[in-house]
Amino acid sequence: MEFTTTEQGMVVLLEPGDEVLESLATVRDAADVTGGFFTGIGAVDRATLGHYDTDTEEYTEETFEGQFEVTAFSGNVGPDKIHAHIQLAKRDFSTIGGHCSGARVSGTFEILLVPSGTTLEHELDERTGLDVFDLSE
Amino acid sequence: MEFTTTEQGMVVLLEPGDEVLESLATVRDAADVTGGFFTGIGAVDRATLGHYDTDTEEYTEETFEGQFEVTAFSGNVGPDKIHAHIQLAKRDFSTIGGHCSGARVSGTFEILLVPSGTTLEHELDERTGLDVFDLSE
Amino acid sequence: MEFTTTEQGMVVLLEPGDEVLESLATVRDAADVTGGFFTGIGAVDRATLGHYDTDTEEYTEETFEGQFEVTAFSGNVGPDKIHAHIQLAKRDFSTIGGHCSGARVSGTFEILLVPSGTTLEHELDERTGLDVFDLSE
Repeated sequence: MEFTTTEQGMVVLLEPGDEVLESLATVRDAADVTGGFFTGIGAVDRATLGHYDTDTEEYTEETFEGQFEVTAFSGNVGPDKIHAHIQLAKRDFSTIGGHCSGARVSGTFEILLVPSGTTLEHELDERTGLDVFDLSE
Repeated sequence: MEFTTTEQGMVVLLEPGDEVLESLATVRDAADVTGGFFTGIGAVDRATLGHYDTDTEEYTEETFEGQFEVTAFSGNVGPDKIHAHIQLAKRDFSTIGGHCSGARVSGTFEILLVPSGTTLEHELDERTGLDVFDLSE
Repeated sequence: MEFTTTEQGMVVLLEPGDEVLESLATVRDAADVTGGFFTGIGAVDRATLGHYDTDTEEYTEETFEGQFEVTAFSGNVGPDKIHAHIQLAKRDFSTIGGHCSGARVSGTFEILLVPSGTTLEHELDERTGLDVFDLSE
């Protein structure tokens, strides 16, 4: 994994075998970012997708292995949490997606992380059982 | 709905029941943004998807209810229009998407709205029957 | 195709018939951008999707014609290469996606290209057979 900090934010290049979320956490810590939004594209050979049902408060998670192009990857970074969603395309160009709990780079993965200019500390929202960032401070 | 304005733009946190497009319009008006681009992720329990056929100039629209993770949400804001596209993942991780005419937050929805530095006033393009923003001024 | 340069980057409006990647290359050259990240939405009537298998180093490519809403379009620009992924929604709101080797605008296409603040020159990664940008300089 390599990254460079510019006036726009952090330009991140991941390598085969890198875990995307752990790499983002490394960049966050190294660059001392307490809040940011990111987008990226790349290819992964393993990804754990999640789906949360706010009615039942049931969380479904499944790990997919294969060769996937990442057609959308975005989310936000706080000091305590990285919240990412991901969309994957298979060889037949059909797609799956969901909350991203993990993704391992196969080909490349290229991310721009833009500091949000505010700390995105997370806090439990009791209505939904989800940790969401707190803008009230 | 809460938002805060930073040097990067507007960081927006929506709450269960909030309508995403109406909330973006509220932020736009409160922050006096006349042009901007946004991306976000979240979860919705109702969304109205649209599809426009430029050949037939036919517009298809359908409202979906369920529990959806939003794997891609992006678009742009003008004084007179918000243009958004959305991608939704179901519990089995299959996805649907299209033009977004409405989306209601179920879990959370987190958006970064970046001012474009230019007003994105819209105007009818007679070739397609679509309102597109006008950069000619 | 029209574009305007603001303090945020280049706001790009494409027109029916425009090729998205060639248009981005035109903007890059005209605005003298040597590195940048972009997101956009729009509608296309032809798109060439690619899928790369890093195990077999096999590349699959297929051109789709029809009426598609673009629910995700993002990637990065270097002096020598534009790397884009795309997600397309059909009239029944089902979606396909992959690496984007070409896309022709049908309705409109609206892009924000943000300079990355660093040159994204590409170099062959021999482990994968892919050209990825080089941050080591």
